[in-house]
Order: sequence, then structure tokens, then C-alpha cells
Amino acid sequence: MNDSLKNSVSGVRIAHEEMEKIFFKILSSRGFTEEKSASIARVFTDNSLDGVYSHGVNRFARFIKYIDAKIININAEPAKKFSAGAIEQWDGNSGTGILNALFSTERAMKIADKFGIGCVALSNTNHWMRGGTYGRHAAKAGYTFIGWTNTTRNMPAWGAVDFRLGNNPLVISAPFKNDAIVLDMAMSQFSYGKMEAAKEKNSLLPYPGGFNKEGNLTNDPAEILETWRALPIGYWKGAGLALLLDLLAAILSGGLSTHEISRSEHEHNVSQIFFAVNVSKLGDRSAISKTVSTIIEDYQSSVPAAGSGKILFPGERAMFTRKENIETGIPVEQNIWNEIIKLLPA
Amino acid sequence: MNDSLKNSVSGVRIAHEEMEKIFFKILSSRGFTEEKSASIARVFTDNSLDGVYSHGVNRFARFIKYIDAKIININAEPAKKFSAGAIEQWDGNSGTGILNALFSTERAMKIADKFGIGCVALSNTNHWMRGGTYGRHAAKAGYTFIGWTNTTRNMPAWGAVDFRLGNNPLVISAPFKNDAIVLDMAMSQFSYGKMEAAKEKNSLLPYPGGFNKEGNLTNDPAEILETWRALPIGYWKGAGLALLLDLLAAILSGGLSTHEISRSEHEHNVSQIFFAVNVSKLGDRSAISKTVSTIIEDYQSSVPAAGSGKILFPGERAMFTRKENIETGIPVEQNIWNEIIKLLPA
Repeated sequence: MNDSLKNSVSGVRIAHEEMEKIFFKILSSRGFTEEKSASIARVFTDNSLDGVYSHGVNRFARFIKYIDAKIININAEPAKKFSAGAIEQWDGNSGTGILNALFSTERAMKIADKFGIGCVALSNTNHWMRGGTYGRHAAKAGYTFIGWTNTTRNMPAWGAVDFRLGNNPLVISAPFKNDAIVLDMAMSQFSYGKMEAAKEKNSLLPYPGGFNKEGNLTNDPAEILETWRALPIGYWKGAGLALLLDLLAAILSGGLSTHEISRSEHEHNVSQIFFAVNVSKLGDRSAISKTVSTIIEDYQSSVPAAGSGKILFPGERAMFTRKENIETGIPVEQNIWNEIIKLLPA
Repeated sequence: MNDSLKNSVSGVRIAHEEMEKIFFKILSSRGFTEEKSASIARVFTDNSLDGVYSHGVNRFARFIKYIDAKIININAEPAKKFSAGAIEQWDGNSGTGILNALFSTERAMKIADKFGIGCVALSNTNHWMRGGTYGRHAAKAGYTFIGWTNTTRNMPAWGAVDFRLGNNPLVISAPFKNDAIVLDMAMSQFSYGKMEAAKEKNSLLPYPGGFNKEGNLTNDPAEILETWRALPIGYWKGAGLALLLDLLAAILSGGLSTHEISRSEHEHNVSQIFFAVNVSKLGDRSAISKTVSTIIEDYQSSVPAAGSGKILFPGERAMFTRKENIETGIPVEQNIWNEIIKLLPA
């Protein structure tokens, strides 16, 4: 989430319908079917609406570069490798990460309609952009969701200096009113993009985010970018969680693990897991809604610390940003938008 | 894990067979059946063997106190509330947490034998002591496992000063050789027990573990115990994860959430989730073993930072401690052991 863009002097605001239309045209021009172009354009636009610009509008040109370089196979369809009943293995066939992840989420939901719970373990897929997309999709339809992806190496094991772990984002979501509570968290405390942006502005991170040359925790992004020893969340705990998420992704999908993905120059053919539970199979929907509402009410009645505002639940800030961006347009840096416009067919 | 006990001058070492026998006698004297006494005694002993004394021998007397106070119903059996196929809801009927959790783990494994994946959502149960017990149990038998429990309030929401969240330990495990890789992590960075022990010894925590009166992160346990603002792992991330784990525990089990559990003076009638996948249903066991081994090999070939030893995987330290404690006996503080001996029937 890159709030700095909002007030950038060199920024513009693009209406979301306009953005989606331009994405659609560019995608169609690359040979995606109308249906696929529409899905991908919607996800990139929604991520931008929600304020996740790094995996929305700011990432779109790079996505097209991957298409043009044929790193992503635009004609690929996911294929079922194996079913054990309520868990299925699918091969993403090096296709578009967004489409494979949307498919797998819906497939897990369909399995859950039959067995209460459904799991899809997906191999050979590509970057899903923002994991929260799939968590929100499932939760809005009345499912709890747990999903994660492995990634290329980008984080050291606890006590190590070189990268052996991915930051393996984990998504957990639950239905809430007409929307969803969506946790979407990488195992690294701050992304390198965030740290680089802070360094450029000469600002410190709000909390320690890695180690300096002396092996001490620091919130100076320049010091961390010198050692590349980014902090896993919860020190050793997040490093352990990253390892286990990679292990389960590889075991369940039969796909590549982080160390295998890291052999390629570009991150591709990652492994992902999608668990859905159909909540309506477990009892009265209105009783479950009440359970969720009372938990959130209690949580939000927390006493804020001095200087803290309202206590937000995961995904709540995205709701506010979405509302604002629908009204005022999606903020984009002028040069980023210019680059996208250049991708339009003549 | 309380390594300080090992070298305590007032400590003794008890052979694990002896400890298990004494636990069994005490449990039988409280009216547990022979089978139940044996299971509970084994788990408390195993946890101690693995070095998790806080949920092993050091907790045993308190467990018996709860039995004597009838907070735990020793005659209760878990009862199936509902089945949706591959996910089942069970009511723990306020019974013994260890027995309910062992039952639920095995039941999830049995469902996974049929559907590939199995989930048990358990309501009205009691403290499972060490979550890793169940993760290791399932993984040693060839299952991947994801499970968690909610707890009473013991951690503030991010940006808050009062407790609204539980530290909701999460367990993820995978089969490894003849044993298991077992991650068992609470959402708080350090337990209050750990912070109190550090304070008593006038020592600092190895890393920041909470906030002081000024609202700054500190590794001084005395300062944290003054504000009771313990740090969630990964700052806002661990707080969000704790909230989602509570939400899913309550939604899936139909049981109590943290704020409801917190109405009682003692933590009881918690909600727990047990997911198991039967790995042998997904492909060749030897290929999967190789996947796990090569991931661990790569992980352990990390370059250690100055001052760091071997890079361990989650659960590996417990393996070393187990070996040592089998050979030399389980270390216990003399006064703790005396208290246990007093619980023996005349």
C-alpha cells in the first residue's frame, strides 16, 4: 500500500471504469480472450481501488512485459492432476497467476459445497498479485478461506545472512456483513519496495524492519538495504512459518518449493494452496453473522493507545480507500500511467 | 520452554518413565480411567521430555487443581454435533483438553483417510497444553497438520492498551523422516511467563517484546510488565492473525470466541480447529519425503550470521532436548516436584 502516491504532485487520478477499460484493451491486444481480459482487468483495477497499488496499477506494465517475454503462457488452462475427494491437485501449466488463482478459489468453494471443506493445491502457477483478492472473493460468497503462495527466495532464515526463504504471503478471510474481513500478510515485516521508498524519502521505518552491518535491529531502511537482512515477522516465528508454508505448498501440490523456484531468473511456476469452508453448511447463517459481528464489535471497543486512532480490522482500511477511490478516481504517478497508455494498441 | 531450569541448583532430574508413572498414579486417583490416565500422563511427560516444561511437568499440579475444582469434567466424552462430510463439529463437553485434542486430531486423520483432507472443529474444550503434541502426532503418522486454539484475552489489539485478543497458538507440521517438523507458535512475541522469569533474573529480552509507558518498544521485561502491552509477532500482523484465528475457530466450531471465554474467571470452554491431509493419498511417499528433505537441506545450508550456530528447523531443538532428557532425566525444580509428589494418593 503506497499512500505516498495519493498526494504526489506528479500524480493523476483515473476513474476506475476508465482504468479497467484501458487494461482490458491492452490485455485483449496481447491475445487474451475477452473473458480472460475482463477478469485480469478487473483484478488489477480492484487491487488499485483497494489501495494496493503495488499489485494493481503500478504492477500492470510489468505484467504485460512478462506476457510479451512469454514468461506467462496466456493460452494455458489449469488441468486437474489428481483428486483425493475433498482435496484436488491442479497444474497451473505456467498460466496467468490471477486466472489460475481465481479458478482455484472457485474450485475449492465448489468442493466445499459438496464436502463442507474443499482444498485445491495448485502447482506451476504465476504471481497471484494480491492474495487478498481471493480471500475476499470467497468470503463475500459465504466461505471462510485460508490460502497462501510460496515465492522465490527473498528472506533469510532466522540467524542467517543469505536468502533461503520466500516471504510466502498468507491470506485468511471470513464473511462479514456484505463484505469480508481479509488478512493478507507476507512473512517479511516490510517489503523491499516499502523499504526502498522509505530510503528514497530519507525516512525511517515505523518499527525495526531488519538488521544492520553490526547485526543489530534497525528501523533505518538504508542500513537494512545494505545487509539485505530483512526481518521476518515475529523474528524466528515468521521465519518458521515461511518454511512450513513452503513445505505444505510443495507437499500438497506436488509443485516447486522456494529453493527450486529460485533457480530461475524470474519468479514463476510457484505453488499455492486454497482452502474454503462453506459456512452455510455448518449452521444458521444469521447466527454465524452474529458471531462475527460481536467479535468485531468487542475488538473495536479496544481502548486506543495515545496517538492511535480507531482500531481497524484486517481489510478495513482497504474498504475506506475503495470508497474514496471510487469517488475521486485511482491515484497514479503520471509516468506510470504514461507507460501504461503506451501499451495500448495503435 | 524454560532452559533456565536445566542448570538450576535447586533442580532434580527425574527419569521419564518414573515421571510418567507418578503422573499416571495421580490421575488415576482423581477418577480418570486407566486409558485416560495413561494418555494424559504420556502427554505431560512427552512435553517435558521435549523441553516444554511450562506445559509439561511445571503445569501438572495446576492441571490437577483444575480437576479438583471441577473446572474440567473428567468423565466427559466428545460428542459429534454435526458433519458436513469432510468437516465435522464436535462438542468437547468441557472435558480434558489433552484428551479432546488427541481425539480430534485422530478423527481429522480418519476423515482425511476417506476424503484426502479432514477437519474437526471442536467447541467447549479445555487447554490442550502444547499444540505441538497434536501436530507431531499427526505428522509422524504421515499427515500434514494445521491446527489452532483460541484462548482467553491476553494481548492488546494493535494500537490498543487493553486486552481484546488471545495469543491463539497456531501449529503447522509436516512428516520428516521418522519424526516431524513442528511449528508451534503463539501470536504474542513472548509469553508473560517468559517475561516474568527474565524480570526476576534482571535480564533483558533478546529482542523487543512490548511497549513501555512512553509507548516505545522495549526489551526490558519490567517495563512491559508495567504496561501489559505485550508485542504481537510482526506488530500489526500478528494481532490481525490472532483475530482471524479466533474468528475461524468460533465460526467453524460454533463454540466460544475469545471475548466470550474471557467472561469466565478461568480459561475454559475454548474452541479449536484440526486440519489433517493424508499425504499418502497425494502421491508416492518416497517422492514426498524427498521433497521435504531437499527443502530442509537447502534451508540448513544457510550461511549463519556471526554468532549464530546451526540453522534449526521448527521442532529440531525439541528433538535434541528429548534425546538429552531421555538419557539424563527430565530437569525439574525441587519445589515443583515436591508439590507433585504431595498429590500422590496415600
